[in-house]
Amino acid sequence: MFIPFTLSVLCAFSSHAMALSEAEQTQIELLKNTALNSDLSYQIVESLTTEVGHRFMGSEGDKKAIKWATAKMKSLGFDKVWTEEVSGPKWSRGEVKARIVTPFPHDVVVIALGGSVGTEQTGITAPVEHFKTLADLKMAPKGSLKGKIAFVSYQMTRHIDGQDYGPAVGARVEGASIAAEKGAIAFIMRSVGTDNNRIAHTGMMRYKEGVKKIPAVALSNPDANLLVNQFSREKTVNFHLKMTSNNPKGEMVKSANVIGEITGSEFPNDIVAIGAHLDSRDVGTGAMDDGLGVAMVLASAHHIAQLPVRPKKTLRVILFAAEEVGLLGAKAYVDKHKTNMDNHIIGAEWDFGLGRIYKMTPGVGASSLNGIRALANILAPMGVSLAPTNDARAQSDMSLLSDAGMPSINFSPDGSTYFDYHHTENDTLDKIDPDALKQNTAVYTVFAYFATQSAIDFRK
Amino acid sequence: MFIPFTLSVLCAFSSHAMALSEAEQTQIELLKNTALNSDLSYQIVESLTTEVGHRFMGSEGDKKAIKWATAKMKSLGFDKVWTEEVSGPKWSRGEVKARIVTPFPHDVVVIALGGSVGTEQTGITAPVEHFKTLADLKMAPKGSLKGKIAFVSYQMTRHIDGQDYGPAVGARVEGASIAAEKGAIAFIMRSVGTDNNRIAHTGMMRYKEGVKKIPAVALSNPDANLLVNQFSREKTVNFHLKMTSNNPKGEMVKSANVIGEITGSEFPNDIVAIGAHLDSRDVGTGAMDDGLGVAMVLASAHHIAQLPVRPKKTLRVILFAAEEVGLLGAKAYVDKHKTNMDNHIIGAEWDFGLGRIYKMTPGVGASSLNGIRALANILAPMGVSLAPTNDARAQSDMSLLSDAGMPSINFSPDGSTYFDYHHTENDTLDKIDPDALKQNTAVYTVFAYFATQSAIDFRK
Repeated sequence: MFIPFTLSVLCAFSSHAMALSEAEQTQIELLKNTALNSDLSYQIVESLTTEVGHRFMGSEGDKKAIKWATAKMKSLGFDKVWTEEVSGPKWSRGEVKARIVTPFPHDVVVIALGGSVGTEQTGITAPVEHFKTLADLKMAPKGSLKGKIAFVSYQMTRHIDGQDYGPAVGARVEGASIAAEKGAIAFIMRSVGTDNNRIAHTGMMRYKEGVKKIPAVALSNPDANLLVNQFSREKTVNFHLKMTSNNPKGEMVKSANVIGEITGSEFPNDIVAIGAHLDSRDVGTGAMDDGLGVAMVLASAHHIAQLPVRPKKTLRVILFAAEEVGLLGAKAYVDKHKTNMDNHIIGAEWDFGLGRIYKMTPGVGASSLNGIRALANILAPMGVSLAPTNDARAQSDMSLLSDAGMPSINFSPDGSTYFDYHHTENDTLDKIDPDALKQNTAVYTVFAYFATQSAIDFRK
Repeated sequence: MFIPFTLSVLCAFSSHAMALSEAEQTQIELLKNTALNSDLSYQIVESLTTEVGHRFMGSEGDKKAIKWATAKMKSLGFDKVWTEEVSGPKWSRGEVKARIVTPFPHDVVVIALGGSVGTEQTGITAPVEHFKTLADLKMAPKGSLKGKIAFVSYQMTRHIDGQDYGPAVGARVEGASIAAEKGAIAFIMRSVGTDNNRIAHTGMMRYKEGVKKIPAVALSNPDANLLVNQFSREKTVNFHLKMTSNNPKGEMVKSANVIGEITGSEFPNDIVAIGAHLDSRDVGTGAMDDGLGVAMVLASAHHIAQLPVRPKKTLRVILFAAEEVGLLGAKAYVDKHKTNMDNHIIGAEWDFGLGRIYKMTPGVGASSLNGIRALANILAPMGVSLAPTNDARAQSDMSLLSDAGMPSINFSPDGSTYFDYHHTENDTLDKIDPDALKQNTAVYTVFAYFATQSAIDFRK
């Protein structure tokens, strides 16, 4: 036990030494403590949610958020601030009402999936056909759902890394078109969520080319349970759905990525990118998704901007537009910056909510792994361990920058409760744990300073 | 340490011995284990919530619940089952929409308080005046709220015994009339609830005679936070409220108490009463409030009805109507049975939700306290302690029977989470902890057998 301990200390010291000078090591410890003791990131997310609210692409809130972010970056001491236009299709949620008609009249809580069409003005009343999984729905014979409403009841399970989101979200994305191919006139599904609140979870769905577009909604978990229990009695369950969501063909709306920089003092063209998405779903106030991330990267940049000297390389904060409607801001960013993507020497996004960071996974050039280990040693006292793999893409929007060649780090938080609130009316300020947010901000501050100040080249 | 232990064992034995024979002691242990290992009470509440749903006084669900309860008692082996009519005023919730208009448009989650009038068809749009407490509202000068909406933001705090419900609920009951006296045109308040969901809590309110009736709603906790945060910036907050709730003068609806008995084999006129309320609020499925209680007392009676011999005294299960609209079923019961209230030798209700019972408090004749201690000794291994006082009324409806002279026991559960769900759409089956429900049922089964079988006279 004694020898490994000594060795690990030696290794830590040696990789530290390679990456940062003694003065820089002192600086980074000071920065870490500044972030751990500051409530700036909480103040920023409080400001965004109290003064702007939700900010769905193209909405009044979205326009307001772009102004808010531009002003906030300036007031936080950024050297440059600008916007880059993003455009995308218009969608409006409208109103939705749904109820079980038989065995007994019972209003249920549903939410339109993002992009869904509405019903006729009189609504739809039809018997429900129950499928436990999307795979079961896929196996239904063609024509077997004629005149019916298809219902998929798969329940997402809770995991620290949200690993069941993938298996659950397929029904949301493609369920409606699969049901329509079998003759269904509407598609309902259990929310992709781990809570037991009478609050339903929205999120993007897509229609398959050439298949009839049918209305698609998610039910809250307790309402889905009730339906399942009613089916356990083998009764016919009739359901009524009326919604005015629409998806006008061709109509477009505009938004913008908001970008700010702390300009590097020695290598201003070398860019370390940290980001989050500024837009939100059109429900709740987008505190967790992704107001928290916006706050974290803005506060990290501010802490670094407060230092007497600018770091050597440029720190760029990218607040992406239109993440919730299909990474449109990220696509626009990659498109615009593809010729200088090689200047992005490393990047990390935050778009996974509420918990403390417990793991970092790199996706960098093998020659820089010693540098990554040095960073990991600085972060270890905050509970962050280094994953043994080197294949990470950045989260969310920035995954497209990773795909375009940007070296990346993925910081994994405890995501156990993320899918309790994801894409719901319940995504509000009170869900945020101020202490976890301080830790998150400290991790991003340390990472940003380390990457902008050290000589490490993370490129492959 | 040795001596007190011996003494307490002796006392336990001696009070046991006084109350029940050795065979009865064996019987009660068997019954306890039957209840602890049975999921009958869970099955009953599953049946009520899946086959009936909510059952607000006078609704279709209420009528269905009366039939359900009558049939269930018969199938569970009750000797007699009957109903007793209850009438009360009609109220319909209608629809409600509310939003913050300035500083930015934001839909908020509200719910009409029970009994509230609606708005004009165009709704109300007006500036909000914020009061931290009902006491602050009371101190506002007359006329100072002219044309305004009064908002009370008092936040209920969480306690094991729900002790902050009293201080919080005053605003719900009398806030609207107090605000109207100052000139307010509507009354909004933070929900009386301990959760942080975008789900608002309803419950009864009352209009003062001779004061203008103004619309009254509760906001969800996160929405109330948002309003408070907006006021912290000293901005004018304008609010829009439109609701169609109504309270037609004089129109009455009918319901019924559903009563069943396991008739006593030696003293059939001596009644041990256990009860819960069959009605629910008009939101959720009333699983916790009070489907759980209904299930518990029905299952307890069933376990006793399964014994080869009926207990000596009669066990009466009373499922009260119209608790949620002001204990109307209990009033009707006391009115009808006042001449033989003295036959009710002891009673206990269950109307406090989800947790395990940790305390019992008697309100009985002093001469029967040894008997109460004997009962407490049997319940102690299930975590139930005996309170040192002897002044309890029964819970909820049965408190009126206590006031009419019925000796009572109040079994206190851990109520820490009760006010997360109380009077909300979130009161659904999934909130129930099957293990706690087994313990609750075992406690009521033991109590019911003990009281019907022993010779103890609990009267004062």
